[in-house]
Amino acid sequence: MATQVAFLARLSQLAQPGRDRAGVAPSRVGVAAEGSTVVGARGVRVGVGVEVGRTKAAGVRCRASLIEPDGGRLVELVAPEEGGRRAALRREAASLPHRVRLDRVEKEWLHVLSEGWASPLRGFMREHEFLQALHFNAIRGDDGRMVNMSVPIVLSVGDAQRRAIQADGATRIALVDDRDRPVAVLSDIEIYKHNKEERIARTWGTTAPGLPYVEEAITNAGDWLIGGDLEVIEPIKYNDGLDQYRLSPAQLREEFARRNADAVFAFQLRNPVHNGHALLMTDTRRRLLKMGYKNPVLLLHPLGGFTKADDVPLSWRMRQHEKVLEEGVLNPESTVVAIFPSPMHYAGPTEVQWHAKARINAGANFYIVGRDPAGMSHPTKKRDLYDADHGKKVLSMAPGLEKLNILPFKVAAYDTKQQKMDFFDPSRKDDFLFISGTKMRTLAKNRESPPDGFMCPGGWKVLVEYYDSLVPSEGNSKLREPVAA
Amino acid sequence: MATQVAFLARLSQLAQPGRDRAGVAPSRVGVAAEGSTVVGARGVRVGVGVEVGRTKAAGVRCRASLIEPDGGRLVELVAPEEGGRRAALRREAASLPHRVRLDRVEKEWLHVLSEGWASPLRGFMREHEFLQALHFNAIRGDDGRMVNMSVPIVLSVGDAQRRAIQADGATRIALVDDRDRPVAVLSDIEIYKHNKEERIARTWGTTAPGLPYVEEAITNAGDWLIGGDLEVIEPIKYNDGLDQYRLSPAQLREEFARRNADAVFAFQLRNPVHNGHALLMTDTRRRLLKMGYKNPVLLLHPLGGFTKADDVPLSWRMRQHEKVLEEGVLNPESTVVAIFPSPMHYAGPTEVQWHAKARINAGANFYIVGRDPAGMSHPTKKRDLYDADHGKKVLSMAPGLEKLNILPFKVAAYDTKQQKMDFFDPSRKDDFLFISGTKMRTLAKNRESPPDGFMCPGGWKVLVEYYDSLVPSEGNSKLREPVAA
Repeated sequence: MATQVAFLARLSQLAQPGRDRAGVAPSRVGVAAEGSTVVGARGVRVGVGVEVGRTKAAGVRCRASLIEPDGGRLVELVAPEEGGRRAALRREAASLPHRVRLDRVEKEWLHVLSEGWASPLRGFMREHEFLQALHFNAIRGDDGRMVNMSVPIVLSVGDAQRRAIQADGATRIALVDDRDRPVAVLSDIEIYKHNKEERIARTWGTTAPGLPYVEEAITNAGDWLIGGDLEVIEPIKYNDGLDQYRLSPAQLREEFARRNADAVFAFQLRNPVHNGHALLMTDTRRRLLKMGYKNPVLLLHPLGGFTKADDVPLSWRMRQHEKVLEEGVLNPESTVVAIFPSPMHYAGPTEVQWHAKARINAGANFYIVGRDPAGMSHPTKKRDLYDADHGKKVLSMAPGLEKLNILPFKVAAYDTKQQKMDFFDPSRKDDFLFISGTKMRTLAKNRESPPDGFMCPGGWKVLVEYYDSLVPSEGNSKLREPVAA
Repeated sequence: MATQVAFLARLSQLAQPGRDRAGVAPSRVGVAAEGSTVVGARGVRVGVGVEVGRTKAAGVRCRASLIEPDGGRLVELVAPEEGGRRAALRREAASLPHRVRLDRVEKEWLHVLSEGWASPLRGFMREHEFLQALHFNAIRGDDGRMVNMSVPIVLSVGDAQRRAIQADGATRIALVDDRDRPVAVLSDIEIYKHNKEERIARTWGTTAPGLPYVEEAITNAGDWLIGGDLEVIEPIKYNDGLDQYRLSPAQLREEFARRNADAVFAFQLRNPVHNGHALLMTDTRRRLLKMGYKNPVLLLHPLGGFTKADDVPLSWRMRQHEKVLEEGVLNPESTVVAIFPSPMHYAGPTEVQWHAKARINAGANFYIVGRDPAGMSHPTKKRDLYDADHGKKVLSMAPGLEKLNILPFKVAAYDTKQQKMDFFDPSRKDDFLFISGTKMRTLAKNRESPPDGFMCPGGWKVLVEYYDSLVPSEGNSKLREPVAA
């Protein structure tokens, strides 16, 4: 395994690539000769479980000094393909007397857990992990160190099933999908109370009705939570034409190593990419090069799990992102596009920690944080739910994220003089036009064009097509929340 | 200063006093020759600011190996008596254009801060401290280490005053009491938004109406918070006949050193002491002696700040506690009774961390945690607000409390066979009678007697007198919450 370096720099104190950084000697670093366009699109199918930081599939053996996963080791929970373990697990799951059926969001979390995004978690949270996540946004590992973990990753059961499981003294249960097909076994189980009100209040800082994740995944969930060690029968697939983009943390680390990346900067998003975003990402690469890195690679990492009804669906966003790369707004040679399988909480400063922590596990040592990350409008009051600066502040102080370099988002807006997106210059503020997410969507829905230079034409066309595809009743409902700049 | 030792043992792993523990060699430890009854009652008036662990007032020079305060040093914020600083500060406060008037609870927090219970805090929280308390229940100190800090200690101002202060660009403001007398100066101030809903949700895990602290101190508070460095003109006094019991952390440390304590175990309470409590405390001392400590001292530490309307008021509780010592239920030679000046949040697992952390600063290295600490009934639902076990679980995992030994409360109940309070024995559970706080109060109010051996007669008499003193309308209202066992 490549030697791994933990960077201790924070907001105002960015890491400099030192002479003594292990793994890649500066002279050996360069842009990969065969520079790919979009990793997922090229269909890089590297096996899970290969040695991190060392490429088998690509035929070259190279090393990269990627950030260490939380807990020191990427925890992968899919049964190995070799040795008949999958068949044995499938047989056991089919024969277990107790089966818990996963809903959509729970299956997304199973996916997240199975690939190690939540390392060092080994399954759905037991109570001591749940309590630490709620109270401390961090969990103490076996080695005594704190790792960040800000959102509960839990599985609920109803009271009747809880009683049946406990009456039998069962220690292993099967997890099945919406068609009752076994997907995993949960072992050494622990059942504890699901205090929904407390969970919601501590995670969102409000209990107001109308929080999208709460309505989707908590309100009707069971009154008990069941934690345990997870073993998943086979890699999770969606068969929606996008699985090629769903690279696991191990696969991403492999890709970064293959490209000889000496810095990886992650950009979490759940919205179409406009040229302001792109400017920020290219500017970040410029800054990293200036700092002495030889090959900083961007992880453009759209969230792929549950999102609220008025967000643009994943498939359309992926088409839009493809156009951004195709039309050269972002450089395919230094960009990896992949899907982050997590569902979205819209829990602002609490959730942005999860978004950052998961990317550490995928090898990112720089994280770009925007204004009001994971924020939305307050569901019942006429204001944003979170202070727009709290996300970045909380992220910069969060326990367990000390090794991650936080890159605050500079504000970009449309410069009417230059007719392009640029960093906002307060000295000539009247030249700038702020185009909110709501405004952008209204334009696209009305098939109007945004100012030249706001978004690449192909990307804009995808958006217009998306809104065209909506039946009118859907398109006009619930457009409350502004897209983060 | 005495060498200080941090104990790293936790729940199931109690510290053993080793040969190499610094400060007190085992042979030098013993019960102080002149063993006092109740420290406060004896009126030990030792000056603030004397060297911790070294007694000046008592005329003997002794050392004790007390636990280190959070951040390494007890932060005391009262202006020194010498050198005219108090007069100068008083003059400045009188002349400052901006004055914030403290309400009762804010003045209690000022008292708490001034004596270093919240060390290393140096004043009302600035935003970065507030956010860390809300999200992490812990704050990173200048040395990079986390100290526990689970409840916000904040000062609010209204919008008009906020605008006036900011318009002037003021950096120092005067804090005045309810009669407009200056009590302190807050400097290098920072003003930030007071999002009450988020504060309440993250602190209590609910936003239900009826939380006593919220109604007392938050609902009508200003929409802005003002943090800064605090300098208090003179020690806070209440002139209620109980100031002698209000020992600061420095004074307590001095008293423990004077007694040659080699372990200090703290018992937080806001209720009358019954024989079940006493049994637990004497049993704890027995266990500590068995572990090899030579002189474990109990800090019986009733909370003295704001409590809800149906709790027994401080003055009556203190009279009750005096009886418990007088009648020999607790041994005065190994007990220090003092008042903890904090107001009460009733925030369960969040607040119990504050209760424990503050006692570290006063020199306690063992903390007794009960069932449902700082808990109460849910204000709107028919259940307890918190899971009764969460307090002890959260406390045992809390960041910054690693050095504190947590002693879980054993359940005591009235043994009808032995006619005394004893630890509950599940093998003969029908012999035991659980007397709830509500039951106890109902008995006292009706001038009935509890079973023999439930509480010392003098203590019980105080309770009956208290309820007699109430006008009927007060005595019968709002008796929702059971007294913790």
